[in-house]
Amino acid sequence: MFPEYDIIVVGAGHAGCEAAAAAAKMGSKVLLATMNMNTIAQMSCNPAMGGVAKGQIVREIDALGGMSGIITDKTMIQFRMLNKSKGPAMWSPRAQSDRMRFAEEWRLTLEQTENVDFWQDMVTGIEVADGRAAGIRTSLGITIPGKAVILTNGTFLNGIIHIGEKQLGGGRAAEKSAKGITEQLVQLGFEAGRMKTGTPPRVDGRSLDYSKMEEQFGDENPSKFSYTDTQPLPKQRSCYITYTNSEVHEILKTGFEKSPMFQGRIQGLGPRYCPSIEDKINRFADRDRHQIFVEPEGWSTVEVYVNGFSSSLPEDVQLKALRKIEGFENAKMFRPGYAIEYDFFPPTQLNLTLETKLVQNLYFAGQINGTTGYEEAACQGLMAAINAHNKINGKEPFVLKRSEAYIGVLIDDLVNKGTDEPYRMFTSRAEHRILLRQDNADIRLTKIGYELGLAEESRLKAVDKKIAETAEIIAYLNNKAIEPEDINSMMEELGSAPITEKQRAGQLIKRPNVEIEHIAQAVTSVGEYLSKFKQESVEQAGIQVKYESYIEKEYSMAARMGELENYNIKGKINYRDIPALSKEAKEKLLKVEPETIGQASRISGVSPADISVLMVYLGK
Amino acid sequence: MFPEYDIIVVGAGHAGCEAAAAAAKMGSKVLLATMNMNTIAQMSCNPAMGGVAKGQIVREIDALGGMSGIITDKTMIQFRMLNKSKGPAMWSPRAQSDRMRFAEEWRLTLEQTENVDFWQDMVTGIEVADGRAAGIRTSLGITIPGKAVILTNGTFLNGIIHIGEKQLGGGRAAEKSAKGITEQLVQLGFEAGRMKTGTPPRVDGRSLDYSKMEEQFGDENPSKFSYTDTQPLPKQRSCYITYTNSEVHEILKTGFEKSPMFQGRIQGLGPRYCPSIEDKINRFADRDRHQIFVEPEGWSTVEVYVNGFSSSLPEDVQLKALRKIEGFENAKMFRPGYAIEYDFFPPTQLNLTLETKLVQNLYFAGQINGTTGYEEAACQGLMAAINAHNKINGKEPFVLKRSEAYIGVLIDDLVNKGTDEPYRMFTSRAEHRILLRQDNADIRLTKIGYELGLAEESRLKAVDKKIAETAEIIAYLNNKAIEPEDINSMMEELGSAPITEKQRAGQLIKRPNVEIEHIAQAVTSVGEYLSKFKQESVEQAGIQVKYESYIEKEYSMAARMGELENYNIKGKINYRDIPALSKEAKEKLLKVEPETIGQASRISGVSPADISVLMVYLGK
Repeated sequence: MFPEYDIIVVGAGHAGCEAAAAAAKMGSKVLLATMNMNTIAQMSCNPAMGGVAKGQIVREIDALGGMSGIITDKTMIQFRMLNKSKGPAMWSPRAQSDRMRFAEEWRLTLEQTENVDFWQDMVTGIEVADGRAAGIRTSLGITIPGKAVILTNGTFLNGIIHIGEKQLGGGRAAEKSAKGITEQLVQLGFEAGRMKTGTPPRVDGRSLDYSKMEEQFGDENPSKFSYTDTQPLPKQRSCYITYTNSEVHEILKTGFEKSPMFQGRIQGLGPRYCPSIEDKINRFADRDRHQIFVEPEGWSTVEVYVNGFSSSLPEDVQLKALRKIEGFENAKMFRPGYAIEYDFFPPTQLNLTLETKLVQNLYFAGQINGTTGYEEAACQGLMAAINAHNKINGKEPFVLKRSEAYIGVLIDDLVNKGTDEPYRMFTSRAEHRILLRQDNADIRLTKIGYELGLAEESRLKAVDKKIAETAEIIAYLNNKAIEPEDINSMMEELGSAPITEKQRAGQLIKRPNVEIEHIAQAVTSVGEYLSKFKQESVEQAGIQVKYESYIEKEYSMAARMGELENYNIKGKINYRDIPALSKEAKEKLLKVEPETIGQASRISGVSPADISVLMVYLGK
Repeated sequence: MFPEYDIIVVGAGHAGCEAAAAAAKMGSKVLLATMNMNTIAQMSCNPAMGGVAKGQIVREIDALGGMSGIITDKTMIQFRMLNKSKGPAMWSPRAQSDRMRFAEEWRLTLEQTENVDFWQDMVTGIEVADGRAAGIRTSLGITIPGKAVILTNGTFLNGIIHIGEKQLGGGRAAEKSAKGITEQLVQLGFEAGRMKTGTPPRVDGRSLDYSKMEEQFGDENPSKFSYTDTQPLPKQRSCYITYTNSEVHEILKTGFEKSPMFQGRIQGLGPRYCPSIEDKINRFADRDRHQIFVEPEGWSTVEVYVNGFSSSLPEDVQLKALRKIEGFENAKMFRPGYAIEYDFFPPTQLNLTLETKLVQNLYFAGQINGTTGYEEAACQGLMAAINAHNKINGKEPFVLKRSEAYIGVLIDDLVNKGTDEPYRMFTSRAEHRILLRQDNADIRLTKIGYELGLAEESRLKAVDKKIAETAEIIAYLNNKAIEPEDINSMMEELGSAPITEKQRAGQLIKRPNVEIEHIAQAVTSVGEYLSKFKQESVEQAGIQVKYESYIEKEYSMAARMGELENYNIKGKINYRDIPALSKEAKEKLLKVEPETIGQASRISGVSPADISVLMVYLGK
C-alpha cells in the first residue's frame, strides 16, 4: 500500500523531526513513522533549548539549514545568552520554550514541508536485503519499502519507567514502549546496551510562593537562535531560583532503600552531568544545598518544571522533600519524577556518517546512540539525513571535522570513543572551541549547508553579506586612529589605562575590558560609521579583532591536525601485524576501524606513541 | 501524600473536564486524575461539536454554567446552524473545531479554575468503605481519599483496538488502555458489558483534489454556542463533500473476510446511527453511494478527517477504497481507521443523579454509561458533578425533567430504559422537543444553574435581560398595527396573501413564510423599534410569537405529565403483590425501582395498562 520511499525516519522526536525535514528539503521522498501523531516533537524533559555548548549546536543546525533554531525562536518564552562575562567561545544561547507551542510548531512545519509523508504506527523491525536496509515493518504487519532507514527511537526501545519500587512499561510517562527493533538488531549482530535517564516532578505553579525565590529574568535585549529573520521576543516570562536544604536531603534519604538506582533495579548508566537529586546528595555529601531552577512550561500553563530535582524515589518521598524547599511549602505535584531505562547501541558500531557498519543504508540518530539532550539528538538526525540522502544519490559522505563544528566533535567522539553513559556536549570536549563559537556558526557552515542543497540561497546571501560587512568593519577598525581626548574618559570609566598618543581602534579593542561598543559610544565618527551595518556584523568584527591572535593560532593548529585528520588509513593497515602497537591499541583499532590517522588518534586507549608507530608503518 | 478531596474525577475527556470544572466552580475541592496530562480533552473522533440534538445539549450545558460551549466558541474554525429551513425545534448549532486548540483551551481553562488539582496516573480501583466511594487507587500504588468519585473512563476500560485481523490493546490509537476498574466493579456486584465504536482514517489534505468536491462553507453570519460574550468567527474554513461509489464498495467488500465485525471478533454492539462504511454497504446494499464529509482538523494542520468512512477493515483495503473516491485519487493516509471495544456498565444501575445504586457517592458519566458523543458525555459529567457536590454537602439531588432539557431526556432514557448499543441523542427522543430549543436553553436553565452555584451572576443578568426584552418585543408586536400599503409588496415577495385592512404584526408573523425580520425590513417604524434590542431577544420574540400555539399546547401537555412525573412511588409499592401487573412489567419495575410514576411509565416493557394498574393500587 506504500510506494518506495527514499528515506524512512522512525520516531518523531528532535532527531527524527530534523532528519525528516532535512532529507525532504534535499529532495528525498520521506516517510516519518511515529507511534502517535499527537506527540510529535515532545520535549520529554525540560522545556528549554540550548545552554552551554548545546546552544552552539542549535546555531550550527540552523546554519546548515536545519529547523531547531527557527522552531525555538518561534516558540520560546525567555532567552538568555549564558556566559556573556566570559570569552566568546563560552557564550551560549539558551531559551525557555513553551512546550505545547514547540511541539505544535514542529508538527505544522513538517506538515508544510514538501516530500514529508506521515504514518502513525509502531515500527517493529527493519527490512534488510543483501546487507542493506530496505524498509520497515510495523505493528499492523505492514511492510513499507525505503532505500534508507534512520532510527531515532529515543527512550522507547523496551523502555521501563521506575518510580520507587514500581516499574511501568513505557517510552515516556503514560506512553507505550516500542518492541521488536532491539531484538532484531541483536540477531543481526548488533551489540545493544541499557542506559538510564530521568526527569523531575512537575508541579502546580499556583501552589508555589515565588516571593521566596530569586527571579531570573530573560536578557534585557534578547537575541535568538536562528540566523534567519525570526523575531526576538518582545516580552518574556521569568524563571525562579531556589535551593534544597539539609531537611530536604534528610527526607530524600528516607527513600533510598526504595530507590531503583541504589537498590540495583536499574542496570543502565545515567547521565553523569545531569544527575538525579538523590545522586547529588549521595555523591556530594558535603554540599548542604543544591540549586533548583523553577521553569514555567509555557506562556499560559501553570505547570512548572523543577529543574535540578530529577528523581526516581517514591512519589510520596519526592513530594514530602519538595515541600521543604523554600517557596515550595504548599507545592502540589502534577506528575512525579521518574527514571527510565531504555536500549541503546554503542555508537562505535557506526561510521562517521552515522550509517551502521553492519547494515548499509541504516542510520542511527539520537538517544539510540547513547547521547542525551535535545540538541545532541537534533544534530544527529540532521547529519544522518544528509548522509542517507547523499548515499542513495551516489554522492559523497558528509562528515564535519572537529575543527568545523561541535557536531563534528560529537559524532567523532561517539563513533571513535563510544560512550558508557548518556553523552552530553560540553565546551571542554571541543579542542578547537575558540573557533566553534555561537556567533560564527553561519560563517562556518552555511555555505556547506547551501552546497548540500539544504540551506536556502537567502541564507547564503545573508551570511555572505555578514562576511563582507565584517571584513569592511575590521579594515576600518584596524585603520581608524583614535585621539586620546576622544577616548580617555571612556578608558578611565572602563578601568583601562589612558592613551597618550593616537591609536588604532583595533588595538584598543584588544584590551581586556574594552569592547567595540565602547569605542562607538565614545567616538562619534566610529559610532556613525558602525550604525550603517547590521548589529551582528559589528559584533562579529569586534570578536574577530579582539581575539585575532587566539583565533589565528587555533586555525593553524587545526590545519596541522587536519593533515593527519585527512590521511586515510582504512583498509591499509593490518593492525595484527604491527608488534610495536600496544595490546589495547591493537584491540581498539581493530574494533573501531578508524578511517583516518586523526580518528585513530582520538580513540581512547590509543596513545600518541601508538600513532607514531602507525606513522612509521605507513612510511610517514 | 494527598489531602482528602471532595470529588475525584477519573478521566479527562469531555465528561471528566466538565465534571471537574463544574464541581470546582460549585466549591468542591476537586482532583482530576488522568493517565496523561498531555491528552486532556482530546476529540478522539471527529473534530466537531454540536449537530442535530447534540448542539442543543451544548447550549444546555452552557446555560447551566458548563464550559463546552465557551471552549468550542474559542476554538472553532467553522459554524453552521443546521436545519434552519425547518421549525426552530430542529435548528441545531454545529461547529468544526481545531482539534489541538480545543484540547489546549480545555486544559488551560481547567488550570485556571480554582479548586482543580491534577494528578497524572492510571486509576486502577475505587476505595469503598461502608458501601460508599471513599477514594481511588492508582497504578503507582497510591490511595487518594475523596468524598465522592466520578468515573469517566471513555473507551479506556480494557480497550482493544481492531484493524482488520490485528488487535492492539489501547484506549485510543497509540494510547494505553486502563485495567482494574471493571474487574473490581464486577466483584462489587456491577454488571458490565462490552461496546464498540469506530473512527475513520485521517488523510493528508495536501494529497486531495478539492476541485472535484463540493465546498461546504460556514454560515454567512455565523452564530456561536455560548450565551456568554464569546465572539463569532470573523473567518472560517470550509469543509468539502464527496461520495463513495460502487467501485469503492466493491473494494471494501474484498476486506469483509478480514473484518473484525463481520467475522465475530468484535463482541460489543456499535452505534447504529454512526455506522462504519462497511456496515452501511452491508445494511443498505441498494445504495450505490454514501456521502463523505471532508473535515479539516484545524486552522493550520493539513490533517483531514474523513467523516462517513469509519472502518475497521484492513488498512490497505481502507486506502485502496479511499483512492476510488472522487478527489481522493492520490490520497495519502496518516492513520488508518479502527474499531475499539471497551467496557461499559448498563446504566440501569444508576439513579437519576448518575450515582450508582450499589455504591453511594460513586458516579458514572460518559461512555462508561453506554453513550456515544462528546456532547452526551459532557452533559453527564456536568450532571454527575452537580449531584456529587450536592450529595456531599447534604443538598437535594438535581434531576432535570424530560420537559426541561435534552439532558433530562438523556439521563431518563439511560437510567430507565438502559441501552444495548452506544446511545446517541436525537430530537425524536424528546417528546417535548418544541420546548427544548437551542434558542431558549438559557431561558430554561440559567436560573437553575445560578441557583446551583454554577452559572455566574452575569449569566443570570444577561438571561433576565433577554427575557424582559423578549416580553417587551412580544407585547409590541401583538399591539403594533401594520397598514396594507406598508407590507403588501413584501407579502407579495414572500408569496403570502396581501392584507386588505391593517393587521397586528404578531398576526403576520404567524404566517408560514413571514418572519420578524421581514416586517422589520418593510416597516420602518418596526425596524427602528427592534434595532434597540439585542438580536437574540428579537429572534426569541419572533419564535415565541410565531409558534405560540404549539408552544402553549406543549407546555400544558408537559404539565399534565409532570403531575405523574412528580408523584413519588419509590418504596411505596410492593410490585410482587400486584397480580394485575404483567410479568415483564413486574420484573422491570423491580429491577429499575422507579422513583416516580412518570419514570415507571417510560420503562420499556411497562405498558400504559400497567401504569393504570399502579394508579389504581395507589388509589389515584
